Amino acid sequence: MSKTFNDLISKVSECSVKKVAVAVAQDSAVLEAVAAAKERKIAEAILVGDEDKIKEVAASINMSLDGYEIIDEKDNYTAALKAVELVHNGQADMYMKGLIDTKSFLKSVLDKEVGLRTGKTLSHVCVFEIDGIDHLLFLTDVAFMTYPTLEEKVHIVENTVEICHACGVPNPKVAPLAAVEVVNPKMPVTLDAEELTKMYEEGKITGCIIDGPLSLDLAIDPEAAKHKGAEGRKIVGDADVLLFPDIHAGNLVYKCLVHTAKVKNGNILTGTKAPVILTSRSDDFETKVNSIALGAVVAEAMSIQ
Amino acid sequence: MSKTFNDLISKVSECSVKKVAVAVAQDSAVLEAVAAAKERKIAEAILVGDEDKIKEVAASINMSLDGYEIIDEKDNYTAALKAVELVHNGQADMYMKGLIDTKSFLKSVLDKEVGLRTGKTLSHVCVFEIDGIDHLLFLTDVAFMTYPTLEEKVHIVENTVEICHACGVPNPKVAPLAAVEVVNPKMPVTLDAEELTKMYEEGKITGCIIDGPLSLDLAIDPEAAKHKGAEGRKIVGDADVLLFPDIHAGNLVYKCLVHTAKVKNGNILTGTKAPVILTSRSDDFETKVNSIALGAVVAEAMSIQ
Repeated sequence: MSKTFNDLISKVSECSVKKVAVAVAQDSAVLEAVAAAKERKIAEAILVGDEDKIKEVAASINMSLDGYEIIDEKDNYTAALKAVELVHNGQADMYMKGLIDTKSFLKSVLDKEVGLRTGKTLSHVCVFEIDGIDHLLFLTDVAFMTYPTLEEKVHIVENTVEICHACGVPNPKVAPLAAVEVVNPKMPVTLDAEELTKMYEEGKITGCIIDGPLSLDLAIDPEAAKHKGAEGRKIVGDADVLLFPDIHAGNLVYKCLVHTAKVKNGNILTGTKAPVILTSRSDDFETKVNSIALGAVVAEAMSIQ
Repeated sequence: MSKTFNDLISKVSECSVKKVAVAVAQDSAVLEAVAAAKERKIAEAILVGDEDKIKEVAASINMSLDGYEIIDEKDNYTAALKAVELVHNGQADMYMKGLIDTKSFLKSVLDKEVGLRTGKTLSHVCVFEIDGIDHLLFLTDVAFMTYPTLEEKVHIVENTVEICHACGVPNPKVAPLAAVEVVNPKMPVTLDAEELTKMYEEGKITGCIIDGPLSLDLAIDPEAAKHKGAEGRKIVGDADVLLFPDIHAGNLVYKCLVHTAKVKNGNILTGTKAPVILTSRSDDFETKVNSIALGAVVAEAMSIQ
């Protein structure tokens, strides 16, 4: 079971070497992450984009391009399609965003011919290692799904549970979060949380344990959970997955962790045929490398299925 | 300007001595906080409740009751009414919840005869000192208002700005938060944030600066704000007030800070004639003492008006 990012990276070393196809690779932050991932034996990369610019950017950060396959394509969207097609065809194992806007990148992910669509809802999972918490936390959805319906929440849970399994968390505890831990008809999110819990109890959602609604202290702090009374609860401060009511709650907590707590994190887009790495400009270097490691572990799990 | 809780407590020492009336005082955690507040010269207390039980609880925590006024009233709700009336009549400066359920306590706050209602919306303010942030942050509403309308958000901002002024923050920067920093008609909270900003620009909300919608990094992290581009923004990682979209987002961030970051905090209920201290069971000892200090500073500011 992976409890830290170092555990995840050790897990990667046990897998066959994975390849990440980068869409529009002429981006210094992305190339730095890709170079570190290669050096740390996390993944190899195929760089798709404007070859001249890729060489220029690599030189500016003293990065050697020896051992990288480069596919020269000056048009950004065409480059994205060529990169995603490599993953579609199995020549690469995961797909990563470079210097292309998110909208065009996602369009390539969903391309009917060469993309990675499965018909499932796409959702975002952010994995955190937090000082003081002894296992990885999987936050969803903090960046992609805005106001998920109950049905979409089911898909989000299913997508996230797959990521947990890939990371060696065999039966994750999923906490549908709210401000309160009791069902209150005036708070629709608590009704969704109750419904998700029922669906788990009736065996309609499997591979995990669901117990909600939960407030954040009951979900992540065993002391607080015991103090407030944890009788009959399946989660007692030991949640693995934090399911947020909507993107505002999720994103605000995500940024709160990044900017005020001592954390490591990595992100992945899921619900696709292969892992998609969609880091943002504001993610730091280690977050990008961690995201590639996460992608490698998930790609390995998908290749085994 | 108070930048830490120590600053706030120094501010208290410059005020006349304040008195807190405690509703149903026979609670060990509340008595401990009240005793610490007295010892640190933050506030005196009038203890209303079952005198025998108060003495019993005080003995169990080795607390001397010398110098405390005790009003013996065995019925809990009557005790609350007697305690709130002391504040209503000016014999005490702030009102604090003891061993009584929140609903009954709030009913006493809103009592038409002896309560503290002003006709304004009640709202909750949580003040945080956070390791790595060089000034106090005022979070609202993380505990009381569930899904505030635009009109209620205006009242919440006005209530909170009063607390900021009392704490020596003369022109607080108010950040209406969302997952994103651009207005998006598909995200109603960003429309409210835009409207609040307009109301500020048109002089309809005064005593503060409002700039939203803002994501949390742009609100609290100057580096992130500069990195993402801060042109034309009035808040560049230096927000004082964080206005949350709803109680779920607010409460989840609040608990995230308490359980994963290095913080001090104190809470107050506002929109009332006098400060109301409504700490919860899960608040630790220092949080309760900080809340009394916050109440004392706010009571002083209210007495001057």
